[in-house]
Amino acid sequence: MTEQEYLNSYDSSGFQKPSVTVDLVLFTVIKDELHVLLTERTQYPYIGRPALPGVFVRIDETLDEAAQRALYQKTGLHDIYFEQLYTWGGIDRDPRMRIISVSYYALVPEAQIPESEQKKFFPAEEILNRNDLAFDHREIISYGRERIRNKVNYTDIAFSLVPEEFTLPQLQKIYEILLGQKLYKANFRKKIADKIQPTEKLTSGNKHRPSRIYRKKV
Amino acid sequence: MTEQEYLNSYDSSGFQKPSVTVDLVLFTVIKDELHVLLTERTQYPYIGRPALPGVFVRIDETLDEAAQRALYQKTGLHDIYFEQLYTWGGIDRDPRMRIISVSYYALVPEAQIPESEQKKFFPAEEILNRNDLAFDHREIISYGRERIRNKVNYTDIAFSLVPEEFTLPQLQKIYEILLGQKLYKANFRKKIADKIQPTEKLTSGNKHRPSRIYRKKV
Repeated sequence: MTEQEYLNSYDSSGFQKPSVTVDLVLFTVIKDELHVLLTERTQYPYIGRPALPGVFVRIDETLDEAAQRALYQKTGLHDIYFEQLYTWGGIDRDPRMRIISVSYYALVPEAQIPESEQKKFFPAEEILNRNDLAFDHREIISYGRERIRNKVNYTDIAFSLVPEEFTLPQLQKIYEILLGQKLYKANFRKKIADKIQPTEKLTSGNKHRPSRIYRKKV
Repeated sequence: MTEQEYLNSYDSSGFQKPSVTVDLVLFTVIKDELHVLLTERTQYPYIGRPALPGVFVRIDETLDEAAQRALYQKTGLHDIYFEQLYTWGGIDRDPRMRIISVSYYALVPEAQIPESEQKKFFPAEEILNRNDLAFDHREIISYGRERIRNKVNYTDIAFSLVPEEFTLPQLQKIYEILLGQKLYKANFRKKIADKIQPTEKLTSGNKHRPSRIYRKKV
């Protein structure tokens, strides 16, 4: 074993190194329901089982870069809202070897997802009631949903799930889906008044009265 | 290189492994000011500079266990409130090699710190205005203080900084220090009313009127 090989496998304190991956929880809203992107495992372990997209962290990329790489490789998407979620360090979470996973969550409006990718998204609620996910990925998804729910009220996170131009009923629907509860229209509008600005446009309003179209205030 | 050595240094995808440490931000309140525990670096790099206590994650311990080990090794403390903070993955954050650091923060009441350890705590505000901390530890402390500030209002985190029995002025002081702002007594008491229960005891009240002593409601 050369010195470099030794340095590669052991820390300076002589401890054997764990491996590090990034796993990504990509959420969107489809048909008024929170959905999450899953891929099918093609390798040992958990072959054929649904799993979060993930990559091993390369020695020359940051964690954020690894998360973006996982996103782009699996969906062709880039430049969307994403944030670190939590780091999972259970000793036996992967049967191959000790793997620490830094999880990220990301949000994308449905309209931005390439058509070929849409079938990879599954209703989060349904997924969380299943037992067939690979690794601890069910727990990671659950934690991601919880984080979003907590952040909806004190950040602008919900805007990452609507297109650039949206109606207020559309935005309210997203808030309700993320929070898991109905909101009163008047309260909702008061709460978001500072965050939005009207455009000149109205929806065509086939069946309903035309609605004003808004953008996020910059 | 044997197969095992290869597995130790490369991921199953053939990438060289980064190292993983846990760094700990231990906060307390001393003399009405938020303090943080620092150790002096005794090894390359940054010899003699202040740094957060940290350990390399062993192959057979979880991240939480590594954080507890760092805490116990450096302070003799255990069984205190701690939580994962954020994982730092900058490529050049350590000049020795690529090291990913999973940071934790912890809170301990001053009264629980062994006397021999008290001198290792420094005012957070002062530390954040200095430029001599090792690695990116200044940034980690800053992020930790921010996290606590955000959590004070919607969790019971402040109770981790008072003894089991406390007066309401004592508790209010802790809230004010963590939030970085004064609170109105009436508002404060309304806010925490559900979280506390009175004991039979009163303070001796040498100079002041005796105060009721409370405990956290269980």
